[in-house]
Amino acid sequence: MNLQEVIDNNLAKTANGKVADYIPALGQVAPKQLGVALYNLDQNELEQAGDANVRFAIESISKVIVFLYAVKQLGLDEVTKHVGARQTGFPFNSILNLEIERAQHPLNPFINAGAIEVTSLIKPLADRQPFEQIIMFAREICHDPQITLNNEIFESEDRTGDTDRSLAYYLKANGIMQGDVTVSLTTYFKQCSMMVTAVSLANLGAVLANNGVKPWDQDRLISSRAATYAKSLMMTTGLYNESGTYSSIIGIPTKSGVGGGLMSAVPNRVGVGIFSPPLDQAGNSVAGLGALGDLSTDLKLDIFRY
Amino acid sequence: MNLQEVIDNNLAKTANGKVADYIPALGQVAPKQLGVALYNLDQNELEQAGDANVRFAIESISKVIVFLYAVKQLGLDEVTKHVGARQTGFPFNSILNLEIERAQHPLNPFINAGAIEVTSLIKPLADRQPFEQIIMFAREICHDPQITLNNEIFESEDRTGDTDRSLAYYLKANGIMQGDVTVSLTTYFKQCSMMVTAVSLANLGAVLANNGVKPWDQDRLISSRAATYAKSLMMTTGLYNESGTYSSIIGIPTKSGVGGGLMSAVPNRVGVGIFSPPLDQAGNSVAGLGALGDLSTDLKLDIFRY
Amino acid sequence: MNLQEVIDNNLAKTANGKVADYIPALGQVAPKQLGVALYNLDQNELEQAGDANVRFAIESISKVIVFLYAVKQLGLDEVTKHVGARQTGFPFNSILNLEIERAQHPLNPFINAGAIEVTSLIKPLADRQPFEQIIMFAREICHDPQITLNNEIFESEDRTGDTDRSLAYYLKANGIMQGDVTVSLTTYFKQCSMMVTAVSLANLGAVLANNGVKPWDQDRLISSRAATYAKSLMMTTGLYNESGTYSSIIGIPTKSGVGGGLMSAVPNRVGVGIFSPPLDQAGNSVAGLGALGDLSTDLKLDIFRY
Amino acid sequence: MNLQEVIDNNLAKTANGKVADYIPALGQVAPKQLGVALYNLDQNELEQAGDANVRFAIESISKVIVFLYAVKQLGLDEVTKHVGARQTGFPFNSILNLEIERAQHPLNPFINAGAIEVTSLIKPLADRQPFEQIIMFAREICHDPQITLNNEIFESEDRTGDTDRSLAYYLKANGIMQGDVTVSLTTYFKQCSMMVTAVSLANLGAVLANNGVKPWDQDRLISSRAATYAKSLMMTTGLYNESGTYSSIIGIPTKSGVGGGLMSAVPNRVGVGIFSPPLDQAGNSVAGLGALGDLSTDLKLDIFRY
Repeated sequence: MNLQEVIDNNLAKTANGKVADYIPALGQVAPKQLGVALYNLDQNELEQAGDANVRFAIESISKVIVFLYAVKQLGLDEVTKHVGARQTGFPFNSILNLEIERAQHPLNPFINAGAIEVTSLIKPLADRQPFEQIIMFAREICHDPQITLNNEIFESEDRTGDTDRSLAYYLKANGIMQGDVTVSLTTYFKQCSMMVTAVSLANLGAVLANNGVKPWDQDRLISSRAATYAKSLMMTTGLYNESGTYSSIIGIPTKSGVGGGLMSAVPNRVGVGIFSPPLDQAGNSVAGLGALGDLSTDLKLDIFRY
Repeated sequence: MNLQEVIDNNLAKTANGKVADYIPALGQVAPKQLGVALYNLDQNELEQAGDANVRFAIESISKVIVFLYAVKQLGLDEVTKHVGARQTGFPFNSILNLEIERAQHPLNPFINAGAIEVTSLIKPLADRQPFEQIIMFAREICHDPQITLNNEIFESEDRTGDTDRSLAYYLKANGIMQGDVTVSLTTYFKQCSMMVTAVSLANLGAVLANNGVKPWDQDRLISSRAATYAKSLMMTTGLYNESGTYSSIIGIPTKSGVGGGLMSAVPNRVGVGIFSPPLDQAGNSVAGLGALGDLSTDLKLDIFRY
Repeated sequence: MNLQEVIDNNLAKTANGKVADYIPALGQVAPKQLGVALYNLDQNELEQAGDANVRFAIESISKVIVFLYAVKQLGLDEVTKHVGARQTGFPFNSILNLEIERAQHPLNPFINAGAIEVTSLIKPLADRQPFEQIIMFAREICHDPQITLNNEIFESEDRTGDTDRSLAYYLKANGIMQGDVTVSLTTYFKQCSMMVTAVSLANLGAVLANNGVKPWDQDRLISSRAATYAKSLMMTTGLYNESGTYSSIIGIPTKSGVGGGLMSAVPNRVGVGIFSPPLDQAGNSVAGLGALGDLSTDLKLDIFRY
Repeated sequence: MNLQEVIDNNLAKTANGKVADYIPALGQVAPKQLGVALYNLDQNELEQAGDANVRFAIESISKVIVFLYAVKQLGLDEVTKHVGARQTGFPFNSILNLEIERAQHPLNPFINAGAIEVTSLIKPLADRQPFEQIIMFAREICHDPQITLNNEIFESEDRTGDTDRSLAYYLKANGIMQGDVTVSLTTYFKQCSMMVTAVSLANLGAVLANNGVKPWDQDRLISSRAATYAKSLMMTTGLYNESGTYSSIIGIPTKSGVGGGLMSAVPNRVGVGIFSPPLDQAGNSVAGLGALGDLSTDLKLDIFRY
């Protein structure tokens, strides 16, 4: 099955999901789109098919990038003082899980509370605000200098982001967040509004798969330990509260975003980027997961089997 | 680092945990014990060191065996109608997670509620009660004909198992459990009271690592799909509510039991069995996890890296 | 408005509720019934209208009787060591509230967990089992020697009472319940299956309203302190998780049961018994609450106003 | 027992509590203070003893005033569309109760989420902002023209009020709050920072006890229905999550505040205001509740008995 066949086999599934519409700019995205990009480490080359060059909002996949950047800046030991690595059965935006656990820190960096906490850790440098640092790092790790901020999406996220504000003030009230709430949220909403493509995400996945070394120029960007840690988190908590479910049937470390993106990394094999906007109930791309499942079977990518 | 060095490097950590003492028969186990067994698929041989032949109660690791047996008897599709594969951040014996989720089935087969549900699915055969079927299967998959029921432990588990009774009646009350509560619980308490060794568990891990084929005689015992599914569950929910944490730092699909056992499976590489009674707060063997971490590093077993 | 007018004004509301049908014996009760009985302490006489002499299952209203009997036998100080007096916003059969609160005892004696705990406190006497003691006390406090156990209902309650079994084992597992679970539950299911009338309940209410002295013979049956305590509980937690709602619009200490009964006590004024089977979503009699609201307005019974 | 004896009997209990210190201005209050004021409707006169004229921050007792004012401005039917009257077993600042209940509105107006919601309903009038309206109403219902805003406390509340911000944004995110979050919170923090005395609170209690008519000038200020409703709420949810407990042993509708105030209303009998800063674990004045218990016994005020 080549990539075009994967597209053909799954495009119709876009009818089974619903494009995120909590902000107008996302709701207007054409639903019947599917793009797949695959970075193969063996041959060191990237294949693509379908809508793999269409730009879309990265949304929650930015949580991986910002986590990696925070670890690069502060070290894994420091970051993990502020956020755990525990799986959670609750929705990504749950406050309840914090209150029940009487947690001293958010359960993991891929739920909103944890991601906001990680963003708040990034310090301004002499000449660059946190978001500037983040977008520069995103361009590098995605091998995509054209990643830009979509201001319309950012402003919508900011305007409607009251659940995130509620989470952030909860963190602040409980002494978990040190940084300024408004500043941290602004950075967080901006990081969610970066525009990427399936190709960008395949590159990101390839760096993770390649244990932190960019395969296109053989330079190390992040530590092997950080890359390993991130792939584990993607497996145990990357697909919202259905992470365990997809782990057991697809078996590929993957992070999703409500913009319709999926980013996967199979250690030492491939990085995958997928784009298809309609989402299932848990917030994951329907046709995208179909495509990923096909790739897993066809290329023997399930890490619990191969 | 050979296995004896792993033992030497971690034995002192037994002082950092606490032997389970909710029943007398467990509380009397000598704490300063550590045994490691490693079944290497490449060389098709089993190494062992330390207390690898000491018998101990399998406890929660039986959840893997019974899940596999239920799948063998009923098929994965049928079993997954009754129990999910979702990660959960709650303790293994939480009722709360059922009530909050208003779940139609337990989140996964490795929390107590899910395990009891799976046990209740196993049907008596003409000549064999469920537990007889289970112990025969356990002997086969562990390559250990000497696995027997410890009656003292079974009776203690049965006598003190009120939390499990509470969970089982909750399942019954909500129409989730079809079988008889008392019969199912008796079977469940018996399965927890089977006596195994680190060697038995290494053999079990080796079957999973070998995708369902027993490496010692090359016969397929369970389907590759069931083996893959089980390894994924071990990764996302095998170490109680710290599963995500250990996934991110050790990276090996593992199931623990409060008897001090750990059973791991690295796909196509090795099966591991470990025994060391003192437990951490989450209920996992302290020195056992130390030993597993050393093996992961030394043999390059982290599946998110290698 | 005389009592017949109250009946006429509310009988049609029976169409707005649903008769409890979790057990067949309850589901077969004719829905279009409404009976009201009012024991007036001023004139020391009891009025009645409609179906005030129809027998029905007391269900949760027995929680008041058994609480009073336990206090009589053991003293209020002893009983309140085992069960609190806290309001709760959760459903009566919630386990979650126990687990969240990590409570050392059930929140109050009118949720199922608390009621089962109170029942478990009652000790067998030389010649009488707990239930025999309870039914004799019920006959006395209700001034109704014809209260008997409905065996069909008891057996149904026992057969379907898995949620209560789950709660009881939770209490046992957490060291809260001292007594035997099965014995306590049998007593509990029997107490719920006593057959009363609106007249019996008006008498019970009158003893509470009269601060523990039976108005029909002027003998003290329970302490004034116990009567006061019970009326407070009826106000803060007597109508399941809508207790506060009805407190604010009716203002009369009241306990309901899913058999369709309501029992109220207005201090020094009246006792009220009502019977009408169809229930609202929270489990309270719809037409019964309509009738009680009319009585409150008409006789100026709201204790927050008069 | 005259009021001075009540003071003498309870002053030493100030040693058993802890002055609120989440903001410096509260933490600096001298702990060994106890003031009691009693407005007797029969004799239409106010007695006082001890520190009854010391000014302190009204804190949560303002929730009663603002609820009454909102009802006066919008009607009870409109207000109760936005906030329930349900008791809750959770702490006053719990978010969890909102998420578990998947509530369409906060459970009641005396938990923080409900109080903030009520505050947000108050509309600016041509010439007066909500807080100006509130403080004018407070002066009138407390018969105390000297009630002023304590700016230091307001600023501290505002600076540290992140839990309230978290709650408010949760309400906003879920479409429950219509008003502006920041504006509503500013008003809310100001209302909590009004400075009252035990005498002011006894007057407020007297208006409630007198069913909405100010006893000092016989003018009706609020409807009888609103007064009744408020007294019920004070009983079922006025003393945080120990409301039921104190209802059962004191039996007087009461609202507390962490400034050390208690405000009680016994229908048609008395209004009570108490001030004593040290609080118990639930946030209620220790010596204040001691004094209120003495008054209840001595003056026969328990509404479930007399």
